[in-house]
Amino acid sequence: MTLRVIHWSSLQPRERAAALQRPVPAQAVSIDADVASIIHDVRVHGDAALLGFAERYDGVKLGALSVTDDEWERAESEVAPEAREALVVAVANVRRFHEAQRFVPVAMETSPGIFCERVERPIRAVGLYVPAGSAPLPSAAIMSAVPAQIMGCPVRVMCSPPNANGRIHPAVLLVARMCGISQVYKAGGAQAVAAMAYGTASIPKVDKVFGPGNAWVTAAKQQISQDPNGAALDLPAGPSEVLVIADHTARPDFVASDLLAQAEHDPRSHVVLVTTSAALAEATEREVRAQCARLTRREIAERALQESRIIVVDDLRAAFEVSNAYAPEHLVIDVQNARSWLPHVQTAGSVFLGPWTCEPLGDYCSGTNHVLPTYGYARAYSGLSLDDFGRRMTVQEASPAGLRTLGPTAHTLAMLEGLDGHARAVSIRLDALHTETLP
Amino acid sequence: MTLRVIHWSSLQPRERAAALQRPVPAQAVSIDADVASIIHDVRVHGDAALLGFAERYDGVKLGALSVTDDEWERAESEVAPEAREALVVAVANVRRFHEAQRFVPVAMETSPGIFCERVERPIRAVGLYVPAGSAPLPSAAIMSAVPAQIMGCPVRVMCSPPNANGRIHPAVLLVARMCGISQVYKAGGAQAVAAMAYGTASIPKVDKVFGPGNAWVTAAKQQISQDPNGAALDLPAGPSEVLVIADHTARPDFVASDLLAQAEHDPRSHVVLVTTSAALAEATEREVRAQCARLTRREIAERALQESRIIVVDDLRAAFEVSNAYAPEHLVIDVQNARSWLPHVQTAGSVFLGPWTCEPLGDYCSGTNHVLPTYGYARAYSGLSLDDFGRRMTVQEASPAGLRTLGPTAHTLAMLEGLDGHARAVSIRLDALHTETLP
Repeated sequence: MTLRVIHWSSLQPRERAAALQRPVPAQAVSIDADVASIIHDVRVHGDAALLGFAERYDGVKLGALSVTDDEWERAESEVAPEAREALVVAVANVRRFHEAQRFVPVAMETSPGIFCERVERPIRAVGLYVPAGSAPLPSAAIMSAVPAQIMGCPVRVMCSPPNANGRIHPAVLLVARMCGISQVYKAGGAQAVAAMAYGTASIPKVDKVFGPGNAWVTAAKQQISQDPNGAALDLPAGPSEVLVIADHTARPDFVASDLLAQAEHDPRSHVVLVTTSAALAEATEREVRAQCARLTRREIAERALQESRIIVVDDLRAAFEVSNAYAPEHLVIDVQNARSWLPHVQTAGSVFLGPWTCEPLGDYCSGTNHVLPTYGYARAYSGLSLDDFGRRMTVQEASPAGLRTLGPTAHTLAMLEGLDGHARAVSIRLDALHTETLP
Repeated sequence: MTLRVIHWSSLQPRERAAALQRPVPAQAVSIDADVASIIHDVRVHGDAALLGFAERYDGVKLGALSVTDDEWERAESEVAPEAREALVVAVANVRRFHEAQRFVPVAMETSPGIFCERVERPIRAVGLYVPAGSAPLPSAAIMSAVPAQIMGCPVRVMCSPPNANGRIHPAVLLVARMCGISQVYKAGGAQAVAAMAYGTASIPKVDKVFGPGNAWVTAAKQQISQDPNGAALDLPAGPSEVLVIADHTARPDFVASDLLAQAEHDPRSHVVLVTTSAALAEATEREVRAQCARLTRREIAERALQESRIIVVDDLRAAFEVSNAYAPEHLVIDVQNARSWLPHVQTAGSVFLGPWTCEPLGDYCSGTNHVLPTYGYARAYSGLSLDDFGRRMTVQEASPAGLRTLGPTAHTLAMLEGLDGHARAVSIRLDALHTETLP
């Protein structure tokens, strides 16, 4: 395993673009039809389909989809006290940071007698998907359950795949309980997404589905979001990624640990180091190899590292140009006076400043949301926030005087656009104002 | 032509759901392959493809795609003074209301030594599509060009189809100039969307495409947004629609004019009147027929009215339940004390309060944005706003003391999730803090 080292200044524009290209996920096309058929099954057979899929994919015969009272009761004692305490701290910090994101309504008189507002409403029903692999992922539950609670979405449904014993990990249930979610269902994969998007006898239909997942979950979210009778999705998804900008003051062992924390996620994870120091590049490469050998998930990390790269640049300005062009999900800035470079960051999901701000702080407990735009989507999308659980609605009210002043403008523009029905909706009222005595 | 009248309280739940179902657009499936082939052509042949499509679809042989200096110069004098003045007023009101929507950054210490922020950046490059039918649509230009300018997106590109003389309507050029947009290109339909999403020799590649359009434009926006190398889109689109809630105090001629202002847009437009007054229902039905006969676009309006309906409810509470279930793009509330009912509105794109606030005010010049969620999308989406032209990015910075306090929490959760690479990124720093002397 070696990390590919690229010298930026020697590259032509076309080579630079290629150097920043993410690897193309292998399958992509082939599962769409399978996912469509799973969604169809859930729509037609509802709960029965979900029980069947649990048997086929999760290897468990479920009695019911709902978490039982007994499972809720045992959850507390089944999580080690230290982990319980950590979950409490994480929920508290995420809550604090998301509460600070509350929408500020707008209300103003744009013209005399024309009152315009922008107000917020919670999304009525949200579905929170929490994946489960070899280990539970309570942090994924935190990142959607906390803002959904703050926003006050009236219906909050959580789905997570059952393990071989037909249970959802107690740490996930603890998070649900801390966030006031009582509707938790044992369903995973595309079938869980379909159940929330269309509803079944047990699982309420929702308006928007949140949460990460594997390729099946992603494809299902894509498909339900294309159907006006389905549900919206949170963010387009791709493999997770990190870009680290480091100068000669950075410690190679720190930098290597950041690259590996990303690489261990998924064989398709992408990790990039951009540095002004050839010496750091070399030392980090050695450290990555040494640290990787000690990881439980080293095989995953090694596969991810095959596609990763170290880019050596002439100066930090160039480093930020590379980063903005790449648009990383996570951007670690490990340079002297890291904060002073923040204005140079135009395009990233979340930024980590300085040597002590390792990326897992943001994954778990700094307070920021870890659901972020991957795969270059940071060019146009923002990470998950409180906003995503509400909708903004505009309101306008014209007084008679307001209509008298502004109505002719609307009338003129309607006629310019050839819409005389629009013009008449104005003129019929202007005429009434001229003939009636009004308050 | 008669408007279908439905008595809500006599319906079963299934019948109620059916009554609120929008008509399914006719084609939908068939143009996807054609649009894909247009996109492919533009990606391969660039400007040459665009010139070819202009000849084929717009019936004009263009010398160049760019608006010429001469066309820019003549634009001012080619628009009637009254229309020019109306455009100035509309731009000013939309600017005022969107400037009031500026993002408020968040910066806080979530835990001792853990500093978290949420900051905004403009999207680097945006593409604004302005359709042109039998008449120009400068209002569509206003709704995206104004917020793009306020946000300060560095690259702002506008595309609009050329007319038979190879020109873009001067009113659209005036709006572009008022909003500081100099890059305006003669391209329409799916090919314009493709050109902005992928770039050509003349037209810069953008990160997000805005603006309404016909089925081809909509399909193209859908397709480019599915490609990570394409561009994001503003909102999923469907036919325009209005729901009017009126009581016995409403004037039937006003209500009819609002229904017709929507119906004249498109044969697929959907108009719904929900009223507590059977007498108003009857009188409005008569008024609709009378007013419709006088419209230039009466054939379009008549086709739309075939699918529209009048729903008679027992009380206003029920009216708002119907409206929230339908989730209209435009909601006109023409009842006594209209404003007092605003808290009952949970799901709508934009709300118009009282008898004088006709919907065209919002289409043109009240200040609100007229790009709104249609087809039930208001359940999960908001109308266009300043936010849509920027991205929010989170930032975190841990001091050594912050890491010492919060690091163990991240470490514990990483181990719970089986991610020891994540845990090591924390512990390698905690170890350093114990052995080093730090500031």
